[in-house]
Amino acid sequence: MKRIALGVQYDGTAFNGYQKQPDRNTVQDRLEIALEKFARVELGTTCAGRTDTGVHALEQVVHFDTDLSRSMQSWVRGVNAFLPDAIAVRWATEVPEHPGQEFHARFAAFARTYHYVLYNNPIRSPLLVGRAGWVFRPLDVDLMRAAAQCLVGTHDFSAFRSSQCQAKSPVKQMHAVHIERHGEVVVFTLRASAFLHHMVRNLIGSLIYVGQGRHSPAWLQDVLEGRDRNDAAPTFMPDGLYLAKIDYDPKWGLPHEAARPLPWF
Amino acid sequence: MKRIALGVQYDGTAFNGYQKQPDRNTVQDRLEIALEKFARVELGTTCAGRTDTGVHALEQVVHFDTDLSRSMQSWVRGVNAFLPDAIAVRWATEVPEHPGQEFHARFAAFARTYHYVLYNNPIRSPLLVGRAGWVFRPLDVDLMRAAAQCLVGTHDFSAFRSSQCQAKSPVKQMHAVHIERHGEVVVFTLRASAFLHHMVRNLIGSLIYVGQGRHSPAWLQDVLEGRDRNDAAPTFMPDGLYLAKIDYDPKWGLPHEAARPLPWF
Repeated sequence: MKRIALGVQYDGTAFNGYQKQPDRNTVQDRLEIALEKFARVELGTTCAGRTDTGVHALEQVVHFDTDLSRSMQSWVRGVNAFLPDAIAVRWATEVPEHPGQEFHARFAAFARTYHYVLYNNPIRSPLLVGRAGWVFRPLDVDLMRAAAQCLVGTHDFSAFRSSQCQAKSPVKQMHAVHIERHGEVVVFTLRASAFLHHMVRNLIGSLIYVGQGRHSPAWLQDVLEGRDRNDAAPTFMPDGLYLAKIDYDPKWGLPHEAARPLPWF
Repeated sequence: MKRIALGVQYDGTAFNGYQKQPDRNTVQDRLEIALEKFARVELGTTCAGRTDTGVHALEQVVHFDTDLSRSMQSWVRGVNAFLPDAIAVRWATEVPEHPGQEFHARFAAFARTYHYVLYNNPIRSPLLVGRAGWVFRPLDVDLMRAAAQCLVGTHDFSAFRSSQCQAKSPVKQMHAVHIERHGEVVVFTLRASAFLHHMVRNLIGSLIYVGQGRHSPAWLQDVLEGRDRNDAAPTFMPDGLYLAKIDYDPKWGLPHEAARPLPWF
């Protein structure tokens, strides 16, 4: 039995999130259907991070176990032939064995990176529907950067946690928050040990409040320290959210790159 | 009676091209339906360039005549409220009168700019479906640039003209062809007096042949000079084609910008 890891990219617009559902219209369902068509046997998969409805992935990581002997290129091309256009396997690799340790897409991950893409223009963009959030009021990136500094480090993120969150602890380590403007598009990049349910979208909503001047940068720190979900902004739309990169120990031999850039930057 | 010009952006994926059709599922149909809902009167429109099924526009220009007195901001916001997400009016302006001359979206245009966005990677991208063409073999941008030089100037473009083309003359003036690589994405920008039917897609198909090394850069000049459609490459997919900018004399007072960049560059 060997364990194979896949890098999976998808446009989440048409799916009911990542995780399997009875309606089978989720990314995991479509992936397992394609794996079964290719391998002619059912293959259960485990992912690094379950994304919500409408959320995209540049590089979700998934693992499964199999006895089949196929080249890694076959796992990529063969499975892609059975996937809808909105999902693609980008790479496949057999993970090495280490005595007493087993690679696990979720539990072996030590950091996750998300991008949030925001279109900032008075008029909506038909070309970014589903791919970017939209804010029509001008946003001050410097104010948002100043506010975001308080998020870096180890904190209790209860103020930005959905009531449905199943994480054992609200304490996570935020490694970095970067905010860049490219013309009319603002890209937020957040890297943390892990994220709570809706945490990125709740943080983006609150950073937008600061960027619009509705609250000062210091307000975000008050919200964080207050640990009360009611103090933060509403959950922002999923459209611009991309799971970009999962980090693992190099010993697992997964393709090693910086956080995957959006294909158009 | 005044003449109003609109800048219209759209994702062409879901529409049967720009021009009116009996099924009413075209960009022009949707725009005229929205104009009628807003103005409560039928308003016939004329566009600068009719785009094919699956082709997008960053800035199509459209004109219509009306006696109604509405602010230009109302024409933008009011009409957008009745348009589907995939179409938006970006600006509206009343064109000034000049003795003996009349602004006309099509006949007053003296140049058009198109972008073609190409994803160049061995694996298809779910995030660029419908928004970019895809070439899985490596492309040499320098070879394509060398080939493209022969296109600049005034030429008979019959070799790149579809058999359905209704233009009076196959002679057009190509002002510039630029090819830029942004990581895995190659963007072609073509500016000409006007384009024949399928001309950009036929040129892109032929430039890709050169970029893949199937033909030398000199081959493109032979094809151009031979004026035989059978010598050029097949029409390339519409997915990555964007009508970017229409140029008019500044006396018409339309918003004056450089070729509209793709929102993500």
